Amino acid sequence: MNLVRDDETLDDLQLKGIHIIQKKKGFRFGVDAVLLANFAKVKKNGTVIDLCSGTGIIPFIIKGKSQCGLVRGIEIQKEFAEMANRSSEYNKFEDEVKFIEGDLKDKKLLKELGRVDVITVNPPYKLHNAGILNETDRSTIARHEVCCKLEDVISAARDLLKDNGRFFMVHRPERLVDILSLMRKYKIEPKRLRFVHPKPGKAPNIVLVEGQRDGGEFLKIEDPLYVHLEDNSYSKEIQEMYNSQSLGV
Amino acid sequence: MNLVRDDETLDDLQLKGIHIIQKKKGFRFGVDAVLLANFAKVKKNGTVIDLCSGTGIIPFIIKGKSQCGLVRGIEIQKEFAEMANRSSEYNKFEDEVKFIEGDLKDKKLLKELGRVDVITVNPPYKLHNAGILNETDRSTIARHEVCCKLEDVISAARDLLKDNGRFFMVHRPERLVDILSLMRKYKIEPKRLRFVHPKPGKAPNIVLVEGQRDGGEFLKIEDPLYVHLEDNSYSKEIQEMYNSQSLGV
Repeated sequence: MNLVRDDETLDDLQLKGIHIIQKKKGFRFGVDAVLLANFAKVKKNGTVIDLCSGTGIIPFIIKGKSQCGLVRGIEIQKEFAEMANRSSEYNKFEDEVKFIEGDLKDKKLLKELGRVDVITVNPPYKLHNAGILNETDRSTIARHEVCCKLEDVISAARDLLKDNGRFFMVHRPERLVDILSLMRKYKIEPKRLRFVHPKPGKAPNIVLVEGQRDGGEFLKIEDPLYVHLEDNSYSKEIQEMYNSQSLGV
Repeated sequence: MNLVRDDETLDDLQLKGIHIIQKKKGFRFGVDAVLLANFAKVKKNGTVIDLCSGTGIIPFIIKGKSQCGLVRGIEIQKEFAEMANRSSEYNKFEDEVKFIEGDLKDKKLLKELGRVDVITVNPPYKLHNAGILNETDRSTIARHEVCCKLEDVISAARDLLKDNGRFFMVHRPERLVDILSLMRKYKIEPKRLRFVHPKPGKAPNIVLVEGQRDGGEFLKIEDPLYVHLEDNSYSKEIQEMYNSQSLGV
């Protein structure tokens, strides 16, 4: 049986032979997801739920890089959830990496899923009304807060995390006030921030945040991560991240 | 009449001939205050109140660098307020730069002061209980949240700002969640953040924040400010800031 359809590609993550299916056209995963999957810390046998999971890229990288337990992805778009499950099947991860079509605002679903050690999320970044052309377009749903707002994401993470469980999110620095205020509101205390800059001297355009459910108040800001150096070559850290995943930054 | 006492120094700010009196021993102003005074934007005739004013360094730099209107400093320690007023007298700024001994938690005082265009503050950074030896020590009061907590500072700023007035604060990045959450709570919306790094590649150790009373939600994170370059020389921006103030970083 061919798991990959005509309008899809099969991409080698260069990580323990793991492959991922993506649409040829439309939303494909980006550097943000790779940065988040590398920022997240998952202990041995730690259970994970990835919200707004899209192609499933974050679960697959975590599966390849850690000794995690069960990893599940929640995705509101049926087409993506089904495609990600085919990626799982392709990699023979059917029992270890699973995707569920569902809405993270659905409290009944959240209860059924139970609680996990780690939540990851690369949510839609753009505010609902920021230049949307078509609310039913797949890429629009993946990029804009059409189906879920930042507050919905953080509220769902609160419900899904075990006590002291860890929350890892990638987002845009201009939403930092919303991110930190909402995390504190839902008692997922921000513990670690890392800003990603296109190069030294330039403002950050990506932020990585780690929170802890009911954690104490102490924030560490880590050394900045530069994608490029002054001479426009990739930084050593990005090279190392992509050594095992030649996906193009 | 000699305005400078035996236990004090008179320091030349190298800024339009302005001098400032400081204690020989104990709390003297630092780079944070200079960074904040350069970060703050004060329009022509704009009125300013500087909270936790200490030696008065921020009002004097603002006076030297802008075409501001009346600048006042609030300082809870009588000895500092009195010394800062002697600095004002030395510079013949008695009518333009004034220091008031007072507690920013005193709502009656805040009402008497009236509203201004700009609030600046370089508050005590350390949490109340973080290693305090002596609560009555002058340096302790200047550095720890003995007399005012961050929330007191932001609440006072709310009361003292005109509609759409601007708030400028320097603080430590590890307090970022508190800073942004409290600013939003008191409806001084964070509009601009700038992180100050000891050098490229190192985590920031100072953050500069601008807020607007009842401002709309949009945060801009500016290009980072590096104190030193890779070769440990001062960055161009710091050199320019200190060209007019040879105070030593």
